[in-house]
Amino acid sequence: MATTTDTPMTEMPMHECWALVREAVVGRLATVFDGHPEIFPVNHVVDHGSVVIRTAAGAKLESAVGRLVAFEVDGYDVENRSAWSVVVKGRAVELTRLHDVLDAMSLPLFPWHGSSKPHFLRIEASEVTGRRFVVAGGTEHAGTS
Amino acid sequence: MATTTDTPMTEMPMHECWALVREAVVGRLATVFDGHPEIFPVNHVVDHGSVVIRTAAGAKLESAVGRLVAFEVDGYDVENRSAWSVVVKGRAVELTRLHDVLDAMSLPLFPWHGSSKPHFLRIEASEVTGRRFVVAGGTEHAGTS
Repeated sequence: MATTTDTPMTEMPMHECWALVREAVVGRLATVFDGHPEIFPVNHVVDHGSVVIRTAAGAKLESAVGRLVAFEVDGYDVENRSAWSVVVKGRAVELTRLHDVLDAMSLPLFPWHGSSKPHFLRIEASEVTGRRFVVAGGTEHAGTS
Repeated sequence: MATTTDTPMTEMPMHECWALVREAVVGRLATVFDGHPEIFPVNHVVDHGSVVIRTAAGAKLESAVGRLVAFEVDGYDVENRSAWSVVVKGRAVELTRLHDVLDAMSLPLFPWHGSSKPHFLRIEASEVTGRRFVVAGGTEHAGTS
């Protein structure tokens, strides 16, 4: 059992990071707008080493286009009492070509935001990091998404 | 049943937002470092209209001190097939006075990061927003934290 002051933390290999991103239902997109941090829950899919997210239209989200963004998923494994988090960083590109959008539309995204004019952003991953922590005492509250 | 192009979204009242932040086990802190967004999973507690988080020492997290940050929690209510998200924005203040730190140490934080020298940041909320979405088709994967 870990103590509260010495929690084992391990870096996860890349393939494990991508597997966890792939399984996660909900992620969070962090952007910078007007110099300040913004954070949005998003649905996503993994597509050829990138993360495609569906967003509602909006100035704040559109400001992410062409800029570095950070995307995060996390969860808790009940079996081994470990919490994990994966962060994908990269430049956000809006999918505008009909072919790209149709590809994204066919991805199994469900609408977190109920917009009739969804936008699709692709995060071209330049950095993927994942960490796993044994949680002292464990918890029964955290999600497993 | 909502359609995929018309998902009902409702703004949550302040007291509901705080109740959900209070119940959540894991949150995510978004900051700006060197002009780019950073995102970290954190444990937190609600304390007198502020969010207190425990962090490991680190240049990126320390860069949040004195600046605007965004904190997010989200979850999924299985009963009513609604996803929700609450974002708290405000300035981050490091707790340094012995009295403040002792107060924070007594809060029921568990160590997501296993640092033997934890830091405590208080986010003095200047903006709290919460939204709830009915999810088309629902999901059995999302967490409830």
